[in-house]
Amino acid sequence: MASDAQQACFEAGIKFGALYHQFAGTPVSPASAPSLETAIEESIENQPFCEGVAVDILTDRLDVEHGYTELTGEYMEVEMRIDYEGTEVVAEMAMQDGYPLMELASVE
Amino acid sequence: MASDAQQACFEAGIKFGALYHQFAGTPVSPASAPSLETAIEESIENQPFCEGVAVDILTDRLDVEHGYTELTGEYMEVEMRIDYEGTEVVAEMAMQDGYPLMELASVE
Amino acid sequence: MASDAQQACFEAGIKFGALYHQFAGTPVSPASAPSLETAIEESIENQPFCEGVAVDILTDRLDVEHGYTELTGEYMEVEMRIDYEGTEVVAEMAMQDGYPLMELASVE
Amino acid sequence: MASDAQQACFEAGIKFGALYHQFAGTPVSPASAPSLETAIEESIENQPFCEGVAVDILTDRLDVEHGYTELTGEYMEVEMRIDYEGTEVVAEMAMQDGYPLMELASVE
Repeated sequence: MASDAQQACFEAGIKFGALYHQFAGTPVSPASAPSLETAIEESIENQPFCEGVAVDILTDRLDVEHGYTELTGEYMEVEMRIDYEGTEVVAEMAMQDGYPLMELASVE
Repeated sequence: MASDAQQACFEAGIKFGALYHQFAGTPVSPASAPSLETAIEESIENQPFCEGVAVDILTDRLDVEHGYTELTGEYMEVEMRIDYEGTEVVAEMAMQDGYPLMELASVE
Repeated sequence: MASDAQQACFEAGIKFGALYHQFAGTPVSPASAPSLETAIEESIENQPFCEGVAVDILTDRLDVEHGYTELTGEYMEVEMRIDYEGTEVVAEMAMQDGYPLMELASVE
Repeated sequence: MASDAQQACFEAGIKFGALYHQFAGTPVSPASAPSLETAIEESIENQPFCEGVAVDILTDRLDVEHGYTELTGEYMEVEMRIDYEGTEVVAEMAMQDGYPLMELASVE
């Protein structure tokens, strides 16, 4: 059997994979970024054990040569809190070496 | 060569396919539906020739047995206006016979 | 009322938007590109009025620094045939000026 | 710091969330299901620490009234093996109570 801490980490991973692959590719501009941030946060917070999601779309990095671009990990920082049966996990996503790295910040 | 009216219809179709397949599967509840409607509208309005998008998530139809469900065509009505070189197309999506039908309402 | 040619162009657009926004973001490597090409073609060919889809993932352009990358328009060329009530539309997608341009090749 | 077992569970979750939200909504029919199964498996196997993915699309459950339907958790069973620094996790997805449940089968 998996421990509660392992389950909590599994749940955190599910939310990150969901968030990324649901919204990657969405057309986004500096003007539309705030509504997209809110929608991403509120949609993922619907999922079980998810206590909070904070999404920051890095609008000053968006390529706006064509007026908008498609959302990828390059343009997004995410922090998420999961609570599974009393174990709290904080997980984060940010770019590292050109790759959108998702990692566990704390498991308590 | 395609006419401007044909191009306008092609552009309308692109936006509908994009909207549907980008956002289908998003976790949604009655509480999170308004932010998702706004994000869908503003993201698709970024695309070329798109003058306006109105999305209505049918919150009273959402299956909330698990607190939320995944967005599909069953839960969504959409109206969109495209302007391509002066030709205006209005297109709509709504359920018909259990299938999310996308159709041209007017081409002028 | 929209003409059959306009309807055919609308249908072509729907398939392009669907194809792009369903599969953008999919992890892809040179080794997995062939199965993804086939799956994209066969899934979109399920849609109404779609006679044929040919997808070419440009494997020599894929960034493989991390072993794989995420599919975007930059890595993909597409040709599609739509038949709506006897009107045949051919539409194509390829990069132009750093933007994945979808266009009508012929309407007959 | 998270343990290797916790990291392995986090990685398993990421792959499940990615798989589900990347491919949910894909048009699928009994005829196109095999190519989609292969593409899903091979695309997710590209991701770090992912040793193997097996996807079974339940073709006899597909609603084919319109010739095809959109892929959801209802139509799919998945098993996945993750190896993170020597810890092996097996995770599974199947329907339970009308909800596509993702769970840890073993952590070793």
